[in-house]
Amino acid sequence: MTASSHWVLTLECPDRPGIVHAVTGAVAAAQGNITELQQFSSDTGRFFMRVQVQSGFERSAFEESVRPLAAYLQASWHLDEVGRPRRTLILASKAAHCLNDLLFRQRSGLLPIEVSGVMANHADLRALATFYGVPFTDHVVLPETKADFERVVLERVEAEDIELVVLARYMQILSPELCRTLAGRAINIHHSFLPGFKGANPYRQAHERGVKLIGATAHFVTEDLDEGPIVEQNVTRVDHTKTVPELVALGQEQESRTLAEAVRLYAEHRVFLDGHRTVIFR
Amino acid sequence: MTASSHWVLTLECPDRPGIVHAVTGAVAAAQGNITELQQFSSDTGRFFMRVQVQSGFERSAFEESVRPLAAYLQASWHLDEVGRPRRTLILASKAAHCLNDLLFRQRSGLLPIEVSGVMANHADLRALATFYGVPFTDHVVLPETKADFERVVLERVEAEDIELVVLARYMQILSPELCRTLAGRAINIHHSFLPGFKGANPYRQAHERGVKLIGATAHFVTEDLDEGPIVEQNVTRVDHTKTVPELVALGQEQESRTLAEAVRLYAEHRVFLDGHRTVIFR
Amino acid sequence: MTASSHWVLTLECPDRPGIVHAVTGAVAAAQGNITELQQFSSDTGRFFMRVQVQSGFERSAFEESVRPLAAYLQASWHLDEVGRPRRTLILASKAAHCLNDLLFRQRSGLLPIEVSGVMANHADLRALATFYGVPFTDHVVLPETKADFERVVLERVEAEDIELVVLARYMQILSPELCRTLAGRAINIHHSFLPGFKGANPYRQAHERGVKLIGATAHFVTEDLDEGPIVEQNVTRVDHTKTVPELVALGQEQESRTLAEAVRLYAEHRVFLDGHRTVIFR
Amino acid sequence: MTASSHWVLTLECPDRPGIVHAVTGAVAAAQGNITELQQFSSDTGRFFMRVQVQSGFERSAFEESVRPLAAYLQASWHLDEVGRPRRTLILASKAAHCLNDLLFRQRSGLLPIEVSGVMANHADLRALATFYGVPFTDHVVLPETKADFERVVLERVEAEDIELVVLARYMQILSPELCRTLAGRAINIHHSFLPGFKGANPYRQAHERGVKLIGATAHFVTEDLDEGPIVEQNVTRVDHTKTVPELVALGQEQESRTLAEAVRLYAEHRVFLDGHRTVIFR
Repeated sequence: MTASSHWVLTLECPDRPGIVHAVTGAVAAAQGNITELQQFSSDTGRFFMRVQVQSGFERSAFEESVRPLAAYLQASWHLDEVGRPRRTLILASKAAHCLNDLLFRQRSGLLPIEVSGVMANHADLRALATFYGVPFTDHVVLPETKADFERVVLERVEAEDIELVVLARYMQILSPELCRTLAGRAINIHHSFLPGFKGANPYRQAHERGVKLIGATAHFVTEDLDEGPIVEQNVTRVDHTKTVPELVALGQEQESRTLAEAVRLYAEHRVFLDGHRTVIFR
Repeated sequence: MTASSHWVLTLECPDRPGIVHAVTGAVAAAQGNITELQQFSSDTGRFFMRVQVQSGFERSAFEESVRPLAAYLQASWHLDEVGRPRRTLILASKAAHCLNDLLFRQRSGLLPIEVSGVMANHADLRALATFYGVPFTDHVVLPETKADFERVVLERVEAEDIELVVLARYMQILSPELCRTLAGRAINIHHSFLPGFKGANPYRQAHERGVKLIGATAHFVTEDLDEGPIVEQNVTRVDHTKTVPELVALGQEQESRTLAEAVRLYAEHRVFLDGHRTVIFR
Repeated sequence: MTASSHWVLTLECPDRPGIVHAVTGAVAAAQGNITELQQFSSDTGRFFMRVQVQSGFERSAFEESVRPLAAYLQASWHLDEVGRPRRTLILASKAAHCLNDLLFRQRSGLLPIEVSGVMANHADLRALATFYGVPFTDHVVLPETKADFERVVLERVEAEDIELVVLARYMQILSPELCRTLAGRAINIHHSFLPGFKGANPYRQAHERGVKLIGATAHFVTEDLDEGPIVEQNVTRVDHTKTVPELVALGQEQESRTLAEAVRLYAEHRVFLDGHRTVIFR
Repeated sequence: MTASSHWVLTLECPDRPGIVHAVTGAVAAAQGNITELQQFSSDTGRFFMRVQVQSGFERSAFEESVRPLAAYLQASWHLDEVGRPRRTLILASKAAHCLNDLLFRQRSGLLPIEVSGVMANHADLRALATFYGVPFTDHVVLPETKADFERVVLERVEAEDIELVVLARYMQILSPELCRTLAGRAINIHHSFLPGFKGANPYRQAHERGVKLIGATAHFVTEDLDEGPIVEQNVTRVDHTKTVPELVALGQEQESRTLAEAVRLYAEHRVFLDGHRTVIFR
């Protein structure tokens, strides 16, 4: 036994009575003290649970106390240390606001991620990444080189044991293969309040439609563009005086904070996929 | 000359330099003191203006000082007394929340409307309307009687000089003819944040899509369902635990306040149509 | 055993490891299926828990399975049926907006309360209460009759087994004795965003201070005026153009929704006192 | 005459009828086309106006057409080019979030300021300022050296013709003399929703009081600490689970955006002092 550690245990399985009692029993067996606990029984028949535990048990011993139960429940589960920075790869393009926000929050201790690198299809953001000490590579991403680029992404994801890929206004569509491979661990920021204004130029669409609120949506990347499960959304009020460039500027603030919040939630193991929806334990 | 009155002058015309100077000149000629003034030059080439004026001039004298200028500017314009209750006809069905909110605010002096009547396709809301002293009629609206119902609506609009028709969760689609006739003076509340979730059952759609914010949209009625110019929108935060009935309940609060605010803006002559968009002077 | 019922069990006690496991064990012993569960370990050393359970056990049997554990934990606890309307007494004065909102939501099925009566120091709201079928009494509340009025309040609280007293813009200060007697079961709406603008005329204070947001605060009634534990708060944006009456009108919307939400939270057993603060399980 | 320029004219004077007409007459005399116009008659008896004008006139010629009118109206007025970056001096300490946000927005073209320098009482933010190419100096600010520091501030304000001093979490109290000298051109960010939680440790105060919303307030610096005219405020929702450090982290986002918005409003000549309040033309 070492000094007490702070663990986060996440678990999902088919719903049935008694799961919370059984899981907290495993926690008790690990002499754990619960500091946070959330659970949800979905109408999809799935059960989701996240519990934070202070325990003097080592990881392997804690896992031993969970494993037989998880098997019995047919659960997929994960045990991690609270606050461990999760290995993250960021894809970007020219727009700086989301990258700046993620890196600033990471350095400020507000975002438990460890940025393994920034891969961009332009060189503009090199100085920003370098300032934050993050490796930066730029790549020519053309129709004929896109497959090469995506191969490098995948190689890094595997070689660097990447847990999360963030598309921080990357502005390119990933191939269906890459979407499938990264399913559930790639988050994109869409610059509108989905499901309104899918596709290109959402601020122009918002201007033409004359909406009174504009927003941003962080969602998991799926093959169906802009249709992935939603993690976080925000809006801000606008009026008729706003031009498209002004909407873009206003929207950037929503994009940055929405993406950063989605990344924080994911990094803290607070996001679960429930079919086409997400379960978020704040 | 009578004791000073408080006027609201609205005007729209093709944009050109000098309009504010010219209009405020007409106001000065009426010995008016401006208490509120807003103007907007749209990228559609239209100019919009709303000015509140305290003046001792009578209506006809004030109008005389505006008329030649308005003709010169090829402007459509309107002069009204600030706060005059505008004659309003409400269409409703079974849901009480929007009607209750409109009538309560009207009685509380927060909404400058005079409700000429409530016409509903069910009798459920009779007691509520009666409590507020508003004439209530219910009508059988079936495919074969819909034309009759709409004829009554139109007759009342003309006979009672109705300035605004409010669809307070009326839940029926108006005929294209009626939409055209009431263009620019009928406001509907749609129970979603348009342009997302058009059509029926938006809360069910919102639940299936797993959005993190739900909302309501007040818009002018047009032939293109749910595509009319937007007057006001609001959203509220939701999460994965909300069932469809809970989304409905949460959404009702947004519907009520959004419709009431749109009606207030319209009644106070703060809403202008600018093509497919609105100009709102708050 | 009867057909399955839906129970809400609330419990608070000194914090220690293993409580969730133990309580969910009692639930399991009652053959219960958890539909909602929240818990919180406060830095005050107190532990709070709310769990909703579907169980075929009758109340007494369910209670039997909880009682020994609660005794062991030195817990205060409560078992209730989910959705049971809680007996509520409303104190009011002349302003209608909060009362109207509470009664409308109650009738709409959005607020699980049963309004035992409205006691007011003016007769203005009689028609409103009567429309909703709620007994209404008005009382002369002067310095010399205040004690009489409060005695009637207390008698009704006891005779009618009142669980919650709501001060819906009652505008009178309760005596310290009554505050103490009703501690933890009387909720007031203060028309400002506390702790700013305590005391009288908060909208005038807000106007003079030139704030950019105004708000409302629902809090438990305590002897220290406007210092009771906060249950719910909301704000809305304002600007320099708003007069005091306009701030009042805007504020009323925040007051109504804030009080209604606080009452809903309380009625659903989601509010716990934790010293001078509240724990709210949404 | 040169090619057309875009001007912003601001003016304040004792209120009287006819000002808008007269000012727009001066604009017309300069062959100007109004692109934005706002005015406000305060209950303090003061009149405020901001008008944006496209005109081919040179500055001196435009000024000539305004000067006699302004003299007649006893107005203080200012003519500037729309979008001209205003010379700004930033005071900071150790916390990076506000400085990072200001410099990032400035570089992104979202904030029309030119940062003349950052003066801090610690060296921590040197790298950040340097990354953005902004001169940075750190100073020992102790009771015995505070006067020296403030003398340097004043010297720079004069030598560099500084238009705005921003206290970006500077955390030191300015002397009354400096407050008076910088009156109306120094903006501070207070880390609470004023007037609640004045003074030190507002997040600790907020935690103890158990508020459900925390916020930030940007205000003009005055001798009365935390009592200066408010420019902008924002809040965000919190709950009982948030520790003081978590409130601090959540609050930082509100501080950054609130200060940046206040600086933008000021830099665009949208902020007027009206006694103890502000008039803001958005």
